Amino acid sequence: MKVMLVEEREVKAFLEQLQQEGLLTEQTRPVWEMILPKRLKRMYDVLNERTRYITVLMEAVDDPHNQAAVLRTAEAFGVQDVHIVTGKAPFSPNRLVTRYADQWLTLHRKPDIETAIGDLKRQGYQVYASYLGEGAIPLSDLNVSKPTVLLFGNEHSGVSEEALSLADGTFIIPMYGFVQSFNISVAAALALYDVTERARRQAGTRYYLPPEERKALYEQWMWQTLHPRIRKQLEQQGYTVR
Amino acid sequence: MKVMLVEEREVKAFLEQLQQEGLLTEQTRPVWEMILPKRLKRMYDVLNERTRYITVLMEAVDDPHNQAAVLRTAEAFGVQDVHIVTGKAPFSPNRLVTRYADQWLTLHRKPDIETAIGDLKRQGYQVYASYLGEGAIPLSDLNVSKPTVLLFGNEHSGVSEEALSLADGTFIIPMYGFVQSFNISVAAALALYDVTERARRQAGTRYYLPPEERKALYEQWMWQTLHPRIRKQLEQQGYTVR
Repeated sequence: MKVMLVEEREVKAFLEQLQQEGLLTEQTRPVWEMILPKRLKRMYDVLNERTRYITVLMEAVDDPHNQAAVLRTAEAFGVQDVHIVTGKAPFSPNRLVTRYADQWLTLHRKPDIETAIGDLKRQGYQVYASYLGEGAIPLSDLNVSKPTVLLFGNEHSGVSEEALSLADGTFIIPMYGFVQSFNISVAAALALYDVTERARRQAGTRYYLPPEERKALYEQWMWQTLHPRIRKQLEQQGYTVR
Repeated sequence: MKVMLVEEREVKAFLEQLQQEGLLTEQTRPVWEMILPKRLKRMYDVLNERTRYITVLMEAVDDPHNQAAVLRTAEAFGVQDVHIVTGKAPFSPNRLVTRYADQWLTLHRKPDIETAIGDLKRQGYQVYASYLGEGAIPLSDLNVSKPTVLLFGNEHSGVSEEALSLADGTFIIPMYGFVQSFNISVAAALALYDVTERARRQAGTRYYLPPEERKALYEQWMWQTLHPRIRKQLEQQGYTVR
């Protein structure tokens, strides 16, 4: 799968494959013809690792640095969706930290934690909150046999009482020293790493995106990877993405 | 083991146990009599999880924030030793980030990477460098059947050529997205978490400190947990810690 697209016939075969998979269509031809094959290939490789089986919910994470670090880590581990309930501060992740990770993600802003958790539960997710108190299970015991939301709370006060009462459970990253807590960017990275590694092995095809979501996401990525001038040109020709 | 020292007889039994283990002696009585039993208990619990089986070497990590974050994570996972080779910047970890983790660690400053790696290899360690290039094995494949050094390089240029040529191997934290690298504080946390979790299960008693090292470290911790005024008093009475 990880072929380099050096020779023209490799490029041709690759484009044909993507057409067969329905990722490139005649309708979107004006778009994908403007994108370098190696770019299409890179986006395809990333698409193949994308998941909605694991997702993240940030509740009142106020520090722009932390907001950004969570987005960057989620993206790096292939987690497509990040759900956001703001606290005192607006959601404005630091661009120096995200390294544009956010442009490849689907961000879902929710008005409040009740709506956020309710929506996710209706979609079949279990919700586990990062929590340092009583009853939290060790991260490695978090069962990933069903789609899972990792919930992270405010830097100082943690997840809210309301979130705790709505969540299916809480987890803790075991610590063995005098230091009793991790920065949220570290906690999120550890949790996402552990949970995605295990879910990738256990969940089989359920871990990855279904065909129609693959297609929608790939088209969106193609559109936004275009130079703004080319996007504008295509729009003037009456082309819009979805 | 995790009893609360509520009742006087529990305290007495605990202190007797530590004397039997050789952690509290008649010689150090003036010190430990000045420390609250629950404090002694906390230090004892942490001591029991301490390891030198896994250790960290930072090569030219220049950012005070990153220096501090690595110390804090190492401490949180029970890793006692951190080895340091400075780069362009001095080693001056940000105190707001370390949360005083460094005072519980043993920091080893080394003049250059050759000395640092040479010393560690002579002590029986294998050295694995965090590296994004060719030949790096996935973190989860890093074999922890022998004592292991995790080596992290400079924020921008990574580990040096010299370090790479001296290391036993390189590892990479698998990434699945467009983001191609982690901040070193995140990379170190992920690597330390994964490796200590596995080594704790696999290495048995070799993972933990031997009796003489436990005693030395406990005495050092007792000494520094004292109020400076009490330390001074004891010193005036002719008492010094080792």
